[in-house]
Amino acid sequence: MQSELGGDQVEGRQAVLELLSVGRRSVRKVMLAEEQEPSPLLDRIEELAGRRRVPVETVPRARLDAQARTEAPQGVLALAAALEPVPLEDLCRPVAGRQPFLLVAAGLTDPRNLGALLRSAECAGVTGVVLPRHRSVRLSPTVAKTAAGAIEHLPFAVVGGIPAALSAMTELGVWSIGLAGEANASLYDLPLGEGPLALVVGNEEKGLPALVRKRCDAVVSIPQHGALPSLNVGVAGAVACFEVARQRQLAR
Amino acid sequence: MQSELGGDQVEGRQAVLELLSVGRRSVRKVMLAEEQEPSPLLDRIEELAGRRRVPVETVPRARLDAQARTEAPQGVLALAAALEPVPLEDLCRPVAGRQPFLLVAAGLTDPRNLGALLRSAECAGVTGVVLPRHRSVRLSPTVAKTAAGAIEHLPFAVVGGIPAALSAMTELGVWSIGLAGEANASLYDLPLGEGPLALVVGNEEKGLPALVRKRCDAVVSIPQHGALPSLNVGVAGAVACFEVARQRQLAR
Repeated sequence: MQSELGGDQVEGRQAVLELLSVGRRSVRKVMLAEEQEPSPLLDRIEELAGRRRVPVETVPRARLDAQARTEAPQGVLALAAALEPVPLEDLCRPVAGRQPFLLVAAGLTDPRNLGALLRSAECAGVTGVVLPRHRSVRLSPTVAKTAAGAIEHLPFAVVGGIPAALSAMTELGVWSIGLAGEANASLYDLPLGEGPLALVVGNEEKGLPALVRKRCDAVVSIPQHGALPSLNVGVAGAVACFEVARQRQLAR
Repeated sequence: MQSELGGDQVEGRQAVLELLSVGRRSVRKVMLAEEQEPSPLLDRIEELAGRRRVPVETVPRARLDAQARTEAPQGVLALAAALEPVPLEDLCRPVAGRQPFLLVAAGLTDPRNLGALLRSAECAGVTGVVLPRHRSVRLSPTVAKTAAGAIEHLPFAVVGGIPAALSAMTELGVWSIGLAGEANASLYDLPLGEGPLALVVGNEEKGLPALVRKRCDAVVSIPQHGALPSLNVGVAGAVACFEVARQRQLAR
């Protein structure tokens, strides 16, 4: 059975390096393109694969590119066990003294946006990610590559519907904050330093779906100071994640 | 003579829309692919082109794609007068009561990173951008498209070398802050709310060049809370720009 989360094909140097070094899931094979310029990242990939007894196959670049599903696999591709989702409730509990700091991707469709946001979220200390089962992007090779290894560190819950998930999260004490460019309230006026919380980001063009918006405990925007109509959704999510991180560090 | 800044070919719906609506430079022609799904953005592009008497040519998609230099021109491409750089000193003066808030791109090489950063910077209220003449990306179609119209709003200075430019900026009273992942000092400990300042971002892999780093008045990092080695440089720049914006709004 295919995993609903995906992540079984990983391309790109940083993503494959994290896959091997984190070792959260088994890796079936690493494929490297022949005749690449020497690179410390490639050396480290080969060394880690050797240590973990993962077969490394050196193949003509054309064969690697034919198997690749991203535009620029950077000469490396790995086949691994798919990522397995965790129950939503697990994400809503503190882990090792860290309060839940969740990211809910409610309708992002561009895999590069999702991948970039996962990378930023991991760097900001996000402890778990909630993805909808339908109408969303799975952890495709493009997501995995753009996330630069973040998918190896983050736990993911897959839910039937985001509105129901937000209700369940409220029951479990998680405060949900929707990001919406047109909201009047400012992200910076919220107390984000303590307690379990979830940032909810919507679709690239349509923003937060109406019912998702309704179920959020607060809906805020990031104040804009330019002439352009809006920030990229992945960047908006990153700015919000780092504002949470900033306030949490102050509160410590 | 070719402009050293570029920007003469603009692709993608948002970028062409801003090109036409801002009207900072003359537009020679807009090309639209035949048989596109109706879209409010395309209607608005046609309407603005009509109002500005810019010829609109409807061409087979294959012809548009052949002329396009980005992967996905979204069925629209415009040919315009290149952008003209302004003198560095002009960027260092307050404009309409706004203190200079500059972005210095010291060695970014990926056009998508530069474009994304320009978009975020414009949204955060950056008042001008400094680019090095050599070893940098010009405002190529990929930069223009990813910037989603930000290049129509931002003034750009092109300098022979970033270190000399930073010295000149210090003389002109602009405080320069380098972003470096490995710096011990935190961005959040700096007073960013007032006065002319410049954020300096480096290369995707190598960070700030040594001499650039030396000429910065402060070198700071954005505290990281995850396991990944680093944030994408465009995202780091965006987070820093919005921290400046947040502090400036508080100071008002």
